Amino acid sequence: MAPGKKGILERLNAGEVVIGDGGFVFALEKRGYVKAGPWTPEATVTHPEAVRQLHREFLRAGANVMQTFTFYASDDKLENRGNNLRLTGQQINEAACDLAREVANEGDALVAGGVCQTPSYLSCKSEVEVKAIFKKQIDVFVKKNVDFLIAEYFEHVEEAEWAVQVLKTTGKPIAACLCIGPEGDLNGVSPGDCAVKLVKAGAQIVGINCHFDPMTCVETVRLMKQGVERAGLRAHYMVQPLAYHTPDCNRQGFIDLPEFPFALEPRILTRWDMHKYAREAYNVGIRFIGGCCGFEPYHIRAVAEELASERGFLPPASEKHGLWGSGLEMHTKPWVRARSRREYWEKIRPASGRPKCPSLSTPESWGITKGHADLIQHKEATSAQEIQHLLEMQQKARTK
Amino acid sequence: MAPGKKGILERLNAGEVVIGDGGFVFALEKRGYVKAGPWTPEATVTHPEAVRQLHREFLRAGANVMQTFTFYASDDKLENRGNNLRLTGQQINEAACDLAREVANEGDALVAGGVCQTPSYLSCKSEVEVKAIFKKQIDVFVKKNVDFLIAEYFEHVEEAEWAVQVLKTTGKPIAACLCIGPEGDLNGVSPGDCAVKLVKAGAQIVGINCHFDPMTCVETVRLMKQGVERAGLRAHYMVQPLAYHTPDCNRQGFIDLPEFPFALEPRILTRWDMHKYAREAYNVGIRFIGGCCGFEPYHIRAVAEELASERGFLPPASEKHGLWGSGLEMHTKPWVRARSRREYWEKIRPASGRPKCPSLSTPESWGITKGHADLIQHKEATSAQEIQHLLEMQQKARTK
Amino acid sequence: MAPGKKGILERLNAGEVVIGDGGFVFALEKRGYVKAGPWTPEATVTHPEAVRQLHREFLRAGANVMQTFTFYASDDKLENRGNNLRLTGQQINEAACDLAREVANEGDALVAGGVCQTPSYLSCKSEVEVKAIFKKQIDVFVKKNVDFLIAEYFEHVEEAEWAVQVLKTTGKPIAACLCIGPEGDLNGVSPGDCAVKLVKAGAQIVGINCHFDPMTCVETVRLMKQGVERAGLRAHYMVQPLAYHTPDCNRQGFIDLPEFPFALEPRILTRWDMHKYAREAYNVGIRFIGGCCGFEPYHIRAVAEELASERGFLPPASEKHGLWGSGLEMHTKPWVRARSRREYWEKIRPASGRPKCPSLSTPESWGITKGHADLIQHKEATSAQEIQHLLEMQQKARTK
Amino acid sequence: MAPGKKGILERLNAGEVVIGDGGFVFALEKRGYVKAGPWTPEATVTHPEAVRQLHREFLRAGANVMQTFTFYASDDKLENRGNNLRLTGQQINEAACDLAREVANEGDALVAGGVCQTPSYLSCKSEVEVKAIFKKQIDVFVKKNVDFLIAEYFEHVEEAEWAVQVLKTTGKPIAACLCIGPEGDLNGVSPGDCAVKLVKAGAQIVGINCHFDPMTCVETVRLMKQGVERAGLRAHYMVQPLAYHTPDCNRQGFIDLPEFPFALEPRILTRWDMHKYAREAYNVGIRFIGGCCGFEPYHIRAVAEELASERGFLPPASEKHGLWGSGLEMHTKPWVRARSRREYWEKIRPASGRPKCPSLSTPESWGITKGHADLIQHKEATSAQEIQHLLEMQQKARTK
Repeated sequence: MAPGKKGILERLNAGEVVIGDGGFVFALEKRGYVKAGPWTPEATVTHPEAVRQLHREFLRAGANVMQTFTFYASDDKLENRGNNLRLTGQQINEAACDLAREVANEGDALVAGGVCQTPSYLSCKSEVEVKAIFKKQIDVFVKKNVDFLIAEYFEHVEEAEWAVQVLKTTGKPIAACLCIGPEGDLNGVSPGDCAVKLVKAGAQIVGINCHFDPMTCVETVRLMKQGVERAGLRAHYMVQPLAYHTPDCNRQGFIDLPEFPFALEPRILTRWDMHKYAREAYNVGIRFIGGCCGFEPYHIRAVAEELASERGFLPPASEKHGLWGSGLEMHTKPWVRARSRREYWEKIRPASGRPKCPSLSTPESWGITKGHADLIQHKEATSAQEIQHLLEMQQKARTK
Repeated sequence: MAPGKKGILERLNAGEVVIGDGGFVFALEKRGYVKAGPWTPEATVTHPEAVRQLHREFLRAGANVMQTFTFYASDDKLENRGNNLRLTGQQINEAACDLAREVANEGDALVAGGVCQTPSYLSCKSEVEVKAIFKKQIDVFVKKNVDFLIAEYFEHVEEAEWAVQVLKTTGKPIAACLCIGPEGDLNGVSPGDCAVKLVKAGAQIVGINCHFDPMTCVETVRLMKQGVERAGLRAHYMVQPLAYHTPDCNRQGFIDLPEFPFALEPRILTRWDMHKYAREAYNVGIRFIGGCCGFEPYHIRAVAEELASERGFLPPASEKHGLWGSGLEMHTKPWVRARSRREYWEKIRPASGRPKCPSLSTPESWGITKGHADLIQHKEATSAQEIQHLLEMQQKARTK
Repeated sequence: MAPGKKGILERLNAGEVVIGDGGFVFALEKRGYVKAGPWTPEATVTHPEAVRQLHREFLRAGANVMQTFTFYASDDKLENRGNNLRLTGQQINEAACDLAREVANEGDALVAGGVCQTPSYLSCKSEVEVKAIFKKQIDVFVKKNVDFLIAEYFEHVEEAEWAVQVLKTTGKPIAACLCIGPEGDLNGVSPGDCAVKLVKAGAQIVGINCHFDPMTCVETVRLMKQGVERAGLRAHYMVQPLAYHTPDCNRQGFIDLPEFPFALEPRILTRWDMHKYAREAYNVGIRFIGGCCGFEPYHIRAVAEELASERGFLPPASEKHGLWGSGLEMHTKPWVRARSRREYWEKIRPASGRPKCPSLSTPESWGITKGHADLIQHKEATSAQEIQHLLEMQQKARTK
Repeated sequence: MAPGKKGILERLNAGEVVIGDGGFVFALEKRGYVKAGPWTPEATVTHPEAVRQLHREFLRAGANVMQTFTFYASDDKLENRGNNLRLTGQQINEAACDLAREVANEGDALVAGGVCQTPSYLSCKSEVEVKAIFKKQIDVFVKKNVDFLIAEYFEHVEEAEWAVQVLKTTGKPIAACLCIGPEGDLNGVSPGDCAVKLVKAGAQIVGINCHFDPMTCVETVRLMKQGVERAGLRAHYMVQPLAYHTPDCNRQGFIDLPEFPFALEPRILTRWDMHKYAREAYNVGIRFIGGCCGFEPYHIRAVAEELASERGFLPPASEKHGLWGSGLEMHTKPWVRARSRREYWEKIRPASGRPKCPSLSTPESWGITKGHADLIQHKEATSAQEIQHLLEMQQKARTK
């Protein structure tokens, strides 16, 4: 940590609002540096300028946390199903730490090293094997001296507990996030019980990231908080939701929506939706508020603008944004100048422009969970025979 | 031009497909470097790294043209309604040329200097005054030796003709784009007649950019082509549409939609919509195919992927994109692997996730055109009294 | 005509508003007395009480015209494609006249005998053959002494002209309606030209019925009126549209919509939509205003209520309807009492309750018109082989 | 009961499917004989032919039960808020019994006398007072010797129990229906507990009517059945839902939807929706299956057609309906003939034709329940002052 910077727990203990960054995987996929499917972060090595620029944009938008771009950067994931990168997890993780630190030093931000769920767990590998994977990643974070650690994107609280237990050995502050909704994890453990398990495993900050829209995630964190308080425990809370509306999701989240991942555009939240999200998260008692897939810099800026009075300042990027649309006063067309005010944007119900499309989808529900043959991962590329089998499964699920 | 590179007319005369870049103003607004309202490109001076990175992403996505980020960089616009930038048009335009050239040299791209409509014309200044504004911008483009010139985003063909006449003095190839739909320009001149006027003024390439969705713009260029051919003239054709669905627009385009500019998200085109657009544009006979507001790098990549067989190669960014979703074969979840094919994505009708929103809007139609008092621009910031007057106009337009 | 009643032309010449009835075919299909597919009116013989009751409801709702329920009651239609009714056209037409007269006598209504397009015309029979069919129907209307005649539901103005020429021989007033939209008849004759032809053939009243929603039909009548006036002719105008919203229709009208005829429910107009329709029709100069398929008695009542001030009285059924929802003042729940006012209902944008459905459809466009083999009719039931052929046509039309 | 007819319990005990009738109040409102707001059934006296005809249509559609049109025919309701009818409850109830019996005798149907919730209960009158109201209605049903009794449309199970206790004194079979959803009655009593209370009070048949769409009502009856079975009791089950889609309802049901009661059209179920409903109700174990508000004769016919194989016969009205659209084989247009099959209609997702409307609404939630001042009823008409107060309440509820 740069001298003079307050640590994550110092900030949260002081009641400060900490703003997280947005979603790297989806943003860099759209910019041409991440491949949807494997979703691995080799761009830290191959295109560092693109990763650095995105870090800068989030910093400028108000983020206090530069999360290392190490999502899915575990060796078992990097080698999965023919994703032949010729790069080790260590190379990718180290480059990610350097980039995050470089940009964090340009402002008031901390570096958080991140780990997430593994194909090994899904493939029913043992606790020892799974923990070994986390250990390899942690070693880089210790070497690079990140400021704190985030274990995130876990669908099963059991695997998240294992991760926290490994992270705990570093002595660094730990945040732990599941990617579940109000119905609980994929084994049916409720949000409240999940949170208690994570706190007991050693996490000081618990919460939710990814898989559901902002309001659903905030509600889930509320249930986690309720569980922790009922158990007589204490924690800080965080939330980093999707920037997509997902009212039609089932327990598996947006992965199950037919639009995932290449037709989610109509679901993208506006900046005004983000104002509501930030206010609701704050009201529920969450103080570490950021974003995940779909969050672009302007979404994070909207969070920072909504909470500007609580934080006492605006983010740098607000110099290029009139609050609540006030910049439109400079528009050449008079009817656009007439939109330069909060009342206009707060009430807008934006049209989709797609009259032949529905407003909700039916999520696919294959009813497949950890342990099922189709979830076992392997290094070889998916075979044509496997794909044929999946198409039959898909057909079957639809006519159910 | 770098030695060995073919010029724009050489390419088009040879029947090559030239891919344009996407929308800088909207993309950089979301990244935090452009202010919506004035929409001016001072970031070329204040944040060159952000502009350079976006150029690189479009180059990597397949663009053959690096358009200088000089939209609205005329002195009368830079000083409009209190937009006090302390930067001259010359400074901004020069920096823009250097950035475009730097990135163009990294690949097979040309640099195009761009001018667009002026507040002066809207404020009923004389032909001499308006042409003087274009002349100042052109001087920079000549000094920096751009490869060709684009006059774009004109709502009145008359102003576009003036621009082309000024550009013509440079001896460089000229492309001219209006931002109109099939109904014609704001004075009611039909697309066919507009095109004839532009060709006669000296443009070798004519077409449409901005204001309407891809299919509407392609249809408008088709009408332009028809007009040119009926007049016994010859031209090349280009199109750089919005990446927003706008079936509910009237003649003024997306500016009139109540969602402009801060709630357009649900209208964003998917990459699959872009495949259809690229194919349609090609079939109509357009060979310079790019994008405008809303186009992100992955949209341009989709255009390049659709036309890969015609061009004979894929763009660099396709290394991070499985064609037609084939990268999903590497996804951990079997039901997502089942989506790794063209048939799935071609047929998708994506839900908005917003069941309380409509699918179409009613555009505002104030019925105000060039010459109306509310369209006269001034250097001072918009006054509270002016805003009050506009709110009354808005109210009146709605109850009409 | 009952002694003392004014005839249709007397009323229209005096500038009175004449209110038509609603749609018998669709209403009686829902009540269980008409078979969708053949759509023939044998209920006049088999279930007179049901037909009489519907006449009464329209009379009570304000209708001044009791149209004989003789739609498609020509012998060639009654015997088409296996529709073996064992009833002659004469029997059905006579019963229909008696029922209409009986109810007309209960109030201030006239009886109008109606004919419509024939399968014979569609099957390319000669003018002589087609006119003979109309003649058989007319003979009944003369015998039963109806007050005036309506030739309606013609897709080709040519057949309508033939009908008017036959009707003209009776000496009774004649109204002639096409079921076309602003694009014109199926041979491409414009609404204005169609109207001129009908007036020249002898119709004193011309207009539109069926196939399109109210606003589209009113617009088409406006074009007809324009045509008649430009030709220096004079006529009265009528409109009897669908009670379904059809913004997505092409030239063939609602027959082409995939929802026709068994899934049109979400498109049904509210009574408030009918107020707007009645006002618009009146403003355009139409004075014979009624309804066609989908119009239930409450829709006609809404037309009569909107025009109550012009007519000087409310219809009988308004005793069971508080104007603009004022009856809700007697509701037990306070939030429903709060809806008892015009402002509430005028502004409502009713939700579909179907979030997985789109708001617009793609009409089928087989591109088949009069003369095509699939439009030739026959007495035998449609064969399995014919159906198989049609499914292939359907498949082909969709992938076009 | 006509000699030779089996009683309701005999039928249900034998495992037969009993089909109920549809909704009189809404159907007769549209036909012009019932006033929305008071919703009282004085048409039995003033327009018996209209009531008789609707009975006949339901009988023809397959209904085995002619429910007396006595909804809200209690004296306290007939005199509520200025609804000055000059008719006693006794007169209306007697006329209703005669009409139901007359039509029941024309087919295989039973007569059911019906009572429903009272303004007195809502106004906090005593058990004695409320029971006295039921007693007056029952006296007519005994005198007219109806075949069985239905207590329906109760929002509070307590009032329903009181009704059942009064009905029990007649010795006739009793069915009891609440108008609640899965969340339970307005006091928060769960569906399972409600059902147990009703069975214990003496009802042999329990279930749900009105307020929610078919699938929601079936689900609620399933919960009731579960409750009864868990309590070790036995009962028969019935369901008579709305014919409107109500996915956006809260606990109060469709009354709270902004579209109630005059803009519900887009929510009307198709006949194909009814097939799904009938099958689902049957699968859940419900054997008395009918409809409430919005159910037209063709909806009941669809229920009877779906269950034709279980019942062994089709209803009379099916003579005018080709099963699954097969009547379309006789249509003149080939693309409509191509729709004459089950696969086509089962998969249809009907468009609303209203692209400027949403697909879901936000129900009004005033949070007002029994005992609140605004729910106290009175004989005088609602005053202007009361309406003003309500508009303020409405405004407040919306900005909550």
